[in-house]
Amino acid sequence: MERKVDVLVIGAGPAGIISAVTARKYYPEKKIAVMKSIDKGVIPCGIPYMFASLKDPDENKLDNAPLEKNNIDVVVDEAIKIDRNEKAVTTKNDQMFRYEKLILATGSEPIMPPIEGINKEGVHPIYKDMVYLKKLIEEIKKAKNVLILGGGFIGVELADEIAKINGVKVWLVEMLPTLLPNSFDTEFSTIAQETLESKGVAVLTDTKVEKILGDEKVDKIRLSDGRKITVDKIILGVGGIPNTKIASDAGLNLGTGKGIWVDEYMRIIDSDIFAVGDCAAKRDFYTHKEVPVMLASTATAEARIAGANLYSLKVIRENKGTIAIYSTYIDGKVLGSAGLTENAARKEGFEIVTGSTEAIDKHPPTLPGASKIKLKLIFSKNSGIILGGQVAGGISCGEIINLIGIAIQKRMSFVELETLQMATHPYLTPAPTVYPIVLAAQNASAKR
Amino acid sequence: MERKVDVLVIGAGPAGIISAVTARKYYPEKKIAVMKSIDKGVIPCGIPYMFASLKDPDENKLDNAPLEKNNIDVVVDEAIKIDRNEKAVTTKNDQMFRYEKLILATGSEPIMPPIEGINKEGVHPIYKDMVYLKKLIEEIKKAKNVLILGGGFIGVELADEIAKINGVKVWLVEMLPTLLPNSFDTEFSTIAQETLESKGVAVLTDTKVEKILGDEKVDKIRLSDGRKITVDKIILGVGGIPNTKIASDAGLNLGTGKGIWVDEYMRIIDSDIFAVGDCAAKRDFYTHKEVPVMLASTATAEARIAGANLYSLKVIRENKGTIAIYSTYIDGKVLGSAGLTENAARKEGFEIVTGSTEAIDKHPPTLPGASKIKLKLIFSKNSGIILGGQVAGGISCGEIINLIGIAIQKRMSFVELETLQMATHPYLTPAPTVYPIVLAAQNASAKR
Repeated sequence: MERKVDVLVIGAGPAGIISAVTARKYYPEKKIAVMKSIDKGVIPCGIPYMFASLKDPDENKLDNAPLEKNNIDVVVDEAIKIDRNEKAVTTKNDQMFRYEKLILATGSEPIMPPIEGINKEGVHPIYKDMVYLKKLIEEIKKAKNVLILGGGFIGVELADEIAKINGVKVWLVEMLPTLLPNSFDTEFSTIAQETLESKGVAVLTDTKVEKILGDEKVDKIRLSDGRKITVDKIILGVGGIPNTKIASDAGLNLGTGKGIWVDEYMRIIDSDIFAVGDCAAKRDFYTHKEVPVMLASTATAEARIAGANLYSLKVIRENKGTIAIYSTYIDGKVLGSAGLTENAARKEGFEIVTGSTEAIDKHPPTLPGASKIKLKLIFSKNSGIILGGQVAGGISCGEIINLIGIAIQKRMSFVELETLQMATHPYLTPAPTVYPIVLAAQNASAKR
Repeated sequence: MERKVDVLVIGAGPAGIISAVTARKYYPEKKIAVMKSIDKGVIPCGIPYMFASLKDPDENKLDNAPLEKNNIDVVVDEAIKIDRNEKAVTTKNDQMFRYEKLILATGSEPIMPPIEGINKEGVHPIYKDMVYLKKLIEEIKKAKNVLILGGGFIGVELADEIAKINGVKVWLVEMLPTLLPNSFDTEFSTIAQETLESKGVAVLTDTKVEKILGDEKVDKIRLSDGRKITVDKIILGVGGIPNTKIASDAGLNLGTGKGIWVDEYMRIIDSDIFAVGDCAAKRDFYTHKEVPVMLASTATAEARIAGANLYSLKVIRENKGTIAIYSTYIDGKVLGSAGLTENAARKEGFEIVTGSTEAIDKHPPTLPGASKIKLKLIFSKNSGIILGGQVAGGISCGEIINLIGIAIQKRMSFVELETLQMATHPYLTPAPTVYPIVLAAQNASAKR
């Protein structure tokens, strides 16, 4: 069967959905279709919360409502080939779609680390597939000992959630010396580790899983220190790789980090094809090196650029390059990171100065529900421009890290942050006398 | 008695304290003294919460600890005269202080509206004085009918708090058609009104108190619609006027709004004298007209500029002009405003376009504790630059309004906000697909 659309989007994760919805806003007359290979998807960042916080995993479904509301066709099928000359995509179910503009939002695949026994029964990557996840959740609820491999965001959040299930013992194993090593310096990552440990999670850093043991099914693992641990389930949270087979088969360039090469407007060299989200290469905001940032928020920002600029460049990209901005929530404790850590900045060769501070997030601090905010900013020593920041504290830190994110995007100086105007309120923020972004900037300034 | 100091600060509110503490950071060798006329001060923005939220009003005391810790002398006395030629200040207790640099942080006085009977017993302005406030709080706790005059932030927050006291009926009277009229457009101010009304506060907008009745003591008031209401206590929350007598007596210029005229670095023409906080004139960020913004957060931002620049201009002021950024908390509901409202922008003559959106502050929205965020951004139609924003929702709105505040200070365009990079997290923010600052900017963009 052959069909003709104006805009074809392959993939229906956040990048695919927002590409299509944005295209609809800017090009109301176009015929737009989204092709998805998984019928029932999930909200990616909500996956950990399907294990305990949500009453029903279905609450985390990624449904077609925003597409249908915007008069966008949904096709459940898998694209297998792009013919750039014919401007056509063929599918597993033998359909052919002719397009004017094609958006690749094919996402990423979980990395399978090269560990002996990785293919045994009981070892589970995280797929963004509702049917798969529901089955996995049921099995985890019946498990005794669950080992999570990888101490990044997904691993830390899964550990926090699965530890809430009665009768399940959780192990979290990270190869590097600290949890969340790409996003936090030690004084922040220890907060994550201590919070998990206080809930009974066994956190093993600086540790590798060397071998997965058991007949067909995992029953033990051997660690790099020689210890053996009895486990009945292993969840893999060691990151993803861009899903680019269809693109590379069509001759599209891959970047050094294996994402699809795109220009500032998410176009490949052929300006009728765009790539957005996890499958597209990202360039670092500071160095323009390729970076493996895979975030729904980054994906949707890219999708908005692609969707608006399909037929002509309407929305100029002003923030050039990708900033990793993360927040997480562990047992009520919030951690956020934006831009470069102190550690990463030094490794990259930046000469830096940092400023740190602590403040209570309500004033007076005896107001009910107050908690401590710990905040650190990293500046270029000579230029005085902000390079990154980290924060730990209560709920408000989820938006405080976005404040730091804006400061980075606008390349603000420590002087601008030191003299920042902001609202403060007894119930909502620290006192104006100790507002932590201002104080941290002032502390950095005093060290120069 | 004659004393000699290097830096003399008159006033020990947030502006005075932060001037002195900042001066200490930048000029570690200087002798610094702060003079306060009220021995026991209070944290200004915490005053409403002394009535019910805090167990003990003393929890809201503004103490000398940050001054003592920074080796700053504290003098309890009242400055009555500045001799600019002698560079000396004389006091009520017949002391004389010689200074090299003088910082005026004399604050503001509550406005006494010209209503017949305003001087009767039972009518109370809000003074930032612990002894005075403790007595007032005791009296309010025994009152039956409390009328609050003025529907600005202080009035709204006092109404919310006093309504929590058992047996006290609260009336809130505002002359203009809506509550918080300077900071919110109607669709937001109605949220404040409805929240207060749902707690039993009688809100009367578009209404004046024409006369305060009673013999020596208030027992009734007559409203502009002719109605009489029985009240035993009236609290005045109609704003403040800069406290500038000592400055004008010394021949310092006052601005059109009656604050002390200062340059970009908070200096009067005589560059050995600085003025900061409520007593200093503020110029609007957009028009450079004088504006009556009286906020502790503004005061501390000015204090940091003055404190750093006392002996030489070290900290360049990059954000020229004052932005009003406010947040408030009414019965768990947060409202924030930054910059110009739609109404104020139109009155000022800006040609504008607005974008509004709503989103749930967690995703999926069934996560416990989720609440709705309503957000509006106001842009210059032709320039595309943000002029203001308003938000209503849960706790995170206290920092979301600061995000909008930074966007204003950096004069960000709707395109920059439409393509903003930010962190999103299920427990902390709306989904990346509907992040409200981005969506509101996109909605405004679509209207241009």
